[in-house]
Amino acid sequence: MNQTELDQLVEKNFKYYKDGHVADYIPALGRVNPKQLGVALYDIQNNAQMSAGQANVRFAIESISKVPVLLLAIKDRGMKAVFEAVGAEPTGFAFNSILNMEINHLKHPMNPFVNAGALMTSSLVKGDTDEERFGRILSFMQELMNDDDITLDNEIYESEHATCSINRSLAYYELGNNMFPFDKDVEEIIDVYCKQCSILVTAEDLSRLGALLANNGVAPWSGKRLISQEAATITKSIMTTAGLYNQSGDYSFHVGVPSKSGVGGGLMVASPQKYGIGTFSPALDKDGNSVAGIHLLTDLVRDLNLNIFE
Amino acid sequence: MNQTELDQLVEKNFKYYKDGHVADYIPALGRVNPKQLGVALYDIQNNAQMSAGQANVRFAIESISKVPVLLLAIKDRGMKAVFEAVGAEPTGFAFNSILNMEINHLKHPMNPFVNAGALMTSSLVKGDTDEERFGRILSFMQELMNDDDITLDNEIYESEHATCSINRSLAYYELGNNMFPFDKDVEEIIDVYCKQCSILVTAEDLSRLGALLANNGVAPWSGKRLISQEAATITKSIMTTAGLYNQSGDYSFHVGVPSKSGVGGGLMVASPQKYGIGTFSPALDKDGNSVAGIHLLTDLVRDLNLNIFE
Amino acid sequence: MNQTELDQLVEKNFKYYKDGHVADYIPALGRVNPKQLGVALYDIQNNAQMSAGQANVRFAIESISKVPVLLLAIKDRGMKAVFEAVGAEPTGFAFNSILNMEINHLKHPMNPFVNAGALMTSSLVKGDTDEERFGRILSFMQELMNDDDITLDNEIYESEHATCSINRSLAYYELGNNMFPFDKDVEEIIDVYCKQCSILVTAEDLSRLGALLANNGVAPWSGKRLISQEAATITKSIMTTAGLYNQSGDYSFHVGVPSKSGVGGGLMVASPQKYGIGTFSPALDKDGNSVAGIHLLTDLVRDLNLNIFE
Amino acid sequence: MNQTELDQLVEKNFKYYKDGHVADYIPALGRVNPKQLGVALYDIQNNAQMSAGQANVRFAIESISKVPVLLLAIKDRGMKAVFEAVGAEPTGFAFNSILNMEINHLKHPMNPFVNAGALMTSSLVKGDTDEERFGRILSFMQELMNDDDITLDNEIYESEHATCSINRSLAYYELGNNMFPFDKDVEEIIDVYCKQCSILVTAEDLSRLGALLANNGVAPWSGKRLISQEAATITKSIMTTAGLYNQSGDYSFHVGVPSKSGVGGGLMVASPQKYGIGTFSPALDKDGNSVAGIHLLTDLVRDLNLNIFE
Repeated sequence: MNQTELDQLVEKNFKYYKDGHVADYIPALGRVNPKQLGVALYDIQNNAQMSAGQANVRFAIESISKVPVLLLAIKDRGMKAVFEAVGAEPTGFAFNSILNMEINHLKHPMNPFVNAGALMTSSLVKGDTDEERFGRILSFMQELMNDDDITLDNEIYESEHATCSINRSLAYYELGNNMFPFDKDVEEIIDVYCKQCSILVTAEDLSRLGALLANNGVAPWSGKRLISQEAATITKSIMTTAGLYNQSGDYSFHVGVPSKSGVGGGLMVASPQKYGIGTFSPALDKDGNSVAGIHLLTDLVRDLNLNIFE
Repeated sequence: MNQTELDQLVEKNFKYYKDGHVADYIPALGRVNPKQLGVALYDIQNNAQMSAGQANVRFAIESISKVPVLLLAIKDRGMKAVFEAVGAEPTGFAFNSILNMEINHLKHPMNPFVNAGALMTSSLVKGDTDEERFGRILSFMQELMNDDDITLDNEIYESEHATCSINRSLAYYELGNNMFPFDKDVEEIIDVYCKQCSILVTAEDLSRLGALLANNGVAPWSGKRLISQEAATITKSIMTTAGLYNQSGDYSFHVGVPSKSGVGGGLMVASPQKYGIGTFSPALDKDGNSVAGIHLLTDLVRDLNLNIFE
Repeated sequence: MNQTELDQLVEKNFKYYKDGHVADYIPALGRVNPKQLGVALYDIQNNAQMSAGQANVRFAIESISKVPVLLLAIKDRGMKAVFEAVGAEPTGFAFNSILNMEINHLKHPMNPFVNAGALMTSSLVKGDTDEERFGRILSFMQELMNDDDITLDNEIYESEHATCSINRSLAYYELGNNMFPFDKDVEEIIDVYCKQCSILVTAEDLSRLGALLANNGVAPWSGKRLISQEAATITKSIMTTAGLYNQSGDYSFHVGVPSKSGVGGGLMVASPQKYGIGTFSPALDKDGNSVAGIHLLTDLVRDLNLNIFE
Repeated sequence: MNQTELDQLVEKNFKYYKDGHVADYIPALGRVNPKQLGVALYDIQNNAQMSAGQANVRFAIESISKVPVLLLAIKDRGMKAVFEAVGAEPTGFAFNSILNMEINHLKHPMNPFVNAGALMTSSLVKGDTDEERFGRILSFMQELMNDDDITLDNEIYESEHATCSINRSLAYYELGNNMFPFDKDVEEIIDVYCKQCSILVTAEDLSRLGALLANNGVAPWSGKRLISQEAATITKSIMTTAGLYNQSGDYSFHVGVPSKSGVGGGLMVASPQKYGIGTFSPALDKDGNSVAGIHLLTDLVRDLNLNIFE
């Protein structure tokens, strides 16, 4: 894959933005220009980064934050404590559904990539106050994505915070069923959660997060281990079975690499031992996934032979 | 991995049969001796097969039949027709649950590896009569596993057929919702399904089925393509997200290779481009998976570095 | 209420047939003329029967058969045995839903007036063969409604039998969960159930069934006790909480007398110690209840002060 | 029924307290002496009140508050507005379940006597502040039960407020689905709701509330209409189909009068045109209903022929 080929992939797949719509549940997302597509590719074996299109435009990380927050929770509490508090099974329902927890009388949310589970992992991050906890999440993201310019977007945060009722419903259900082992203040948990979703990143940032996971926890840019190999492996496993909500099976079927999507328009891919990939295109399909992003990734995965099931 | 190492893996993991119980919902399975463990390893790169323990003991294929029957349905009807009739998403519930279909008003069963979906793929196999359809399934299994001695166990079949009420309930639900595109005779569908579950195979057979999938559809023993590359790839994908029922996420988390289990005690693994693996040990955990089999596989996957997420 | 007033009620409410549609899931029902409305009123205190409109037109009893079959099951097996096999709670879901049984891991269907429960009560009726069992149901209906001309409509029965997949699904679910204490042959149970639904009655027949229940089990026309007082009381209780499926609450709210509806267009009402009422008008609302019938009943209940909650 | 007979009913049924346990989810309820049984009977036709046992002991009204709050909401907003915001159907699930709302994508809670519905009716009560709203509820209860000594128990309120997570989960679910037409501040709604549950009443108070409903909205002690006839009628209707949560069907089956229970140990009965009844005995069965209370009521309803289905 050379620069020309990558540029061509952007050019070819740009048009698919027309098949989607930007998220509009909050004004700050609704105003984003849908006519954008960017991709960044981090080649681990050659320690080289390429990008094309809007790869340096900042956008809200949204659900992709569930990945670094899971990793920080594991770092803070250990694998055992984290996976006693959250499971690793797909739910069979939408990302914000309570059904499987209540029908099956579960003692913990089903996985860290549905909202109920992400509220849990967020609550597991250490910190004496919610400010401290969020500060640690932000620093950790900066470290994992090697970008000190990663910051909080206050307008998005405030909108998220104001429209977060279903997440509060989930969090209170978990509190009422004694699921949270540490922080038990729902408003604190919600506050940190809304902030972590409102962090601005770029496709290049996401490609570095993907590369870190693909490289089993060692940052290819520095050679330093930032997370344990085990954490990297199981994260890629859960990204595969539950990374795109209740479309995870279809996505694995059609694309076939560990990925995580966000309604800000980002997609983050970790192709084991090969590549980290980030894409950005804010027009979403009905399930909340970036339309042009998935099209581009489908091409890229095929061209680079990255399907882990082949 | 040499023969001594494989023998040692059997020796080391044999004891875990004590943590499980043989399936006892039908007498023919309840009589099986739990003190058995066999493993067969098919090395694709070297086209070499090794085995240790009870790798040639015949046992009921049960749910592992869902894999070859999916492959035959694809061969008979094409990828498009099959995945219009069955989805590729994990259900979040037990293998025989109707909940997700009814709650979500689904037009098709969620994936081919829960019972509702396997009844569907079985109904998609071509044949003018149920005898012909089953005959084609049996022949196809013999071909995929390169073993002409694969046969039906009539006693198991008759017991399965007599205790198949929940599957009939699922099939009539599907019929009542007009899901079956071809055969619409539930008793015929049930008959073929019960027969496909009652076929006797060995761990070596399963290792060959795994090797065929791992080798992207070309039989390593003959160099002949038996199924399309696409069929092999998506099958490994669904094995990963839904191969061990509602323990698929946990299993991917802990083991990390595309696998399919059966309550006869078998496990079939397809390690892309590397190995096909079959294990047999009939004592099951509460979820219906072979205890010693999973222990042995965990060791083997680690020793051979087969985790697809690393 | 004199004859003129009753005639006027028919005249006034006839027009509402336009707001509904005849059941069309089987041709024999789809051909019924929607422009019909009949009412019959059995005055217990004066032992007098009045009727107006199409009160002697025969139509399929459908779900109203669940009442006499419950009563026969109680007669045959006793109150205790029947209510060990079926509950008395509203389900919160449609008449043919399996959800509550599976979600709550129930050991029996929730009440005798949803399909799962009616399949159960039908299976409790005594008889060495399904013919004998159905024969006893038919005779019992003739006795309860004092009409020897009540017969089976073979064409409706055959259509019902051919489109009964969801009921078969429910019955096999019950069989698979060991719910049936006596007959365990689903096809037999389905056969009797489809036949009981296909019996032809008139609004006058239904008014006599209602009168028998209203009179606590003693036929007002003969002074003979046909069912126990307790059976009559609890039947009226369940008609109130679950007689109109998942519209029972709304119906009790708006009308307020124990009633049972059928998709043949009938409604049967038992106003304690006062009246039995039958109506017939085949155009149904979206929930399967007779539109003009409910309108007429609302007037009649108000005019005669029959609301049991007032 | 004379005083001696009523005394004997208390004496006879007192012992059943042994079959239950006082509610212990908050300390203030857990400390209540289980060895209590009181009954009060308000005879509408003779405008006479009798009582026996602990009929003047104060206890927490808990879920019985759902009745006066529904009545106040109707008074404040009108029947139409209230029943556009809440339904009148039994849910088929426990009082605090979200399942039916989410599974059926409901636009409003199913009935005013499950928690989701009671949060709704509480939010419909007029008042510029939550203090004013609660003040109006308290005054209304004093008026309906003709007792100025009815007050809030602050200790119970504070405990309720501190253990109210599942109710918060329900309220945020409703908020997130835009169900609340007026007050949209969940903490305010929760505050009023917890207060209304923590009001102290006596069995005599409850008998007056029952008498008011039984007398179709006119207070028998004053001859003044306090609520509309329609409000009284539909309230008795919903008490019958949903007054004892998911035991409502069984209770109607066994007892057969419109009733509402509370975990404080109270039961309130409205026997149309005949009696209002209140009982108090704090030891509860597993479903949260007063054991000795239900035993005593069963006797009383039989002795006075109050079953509305007979």
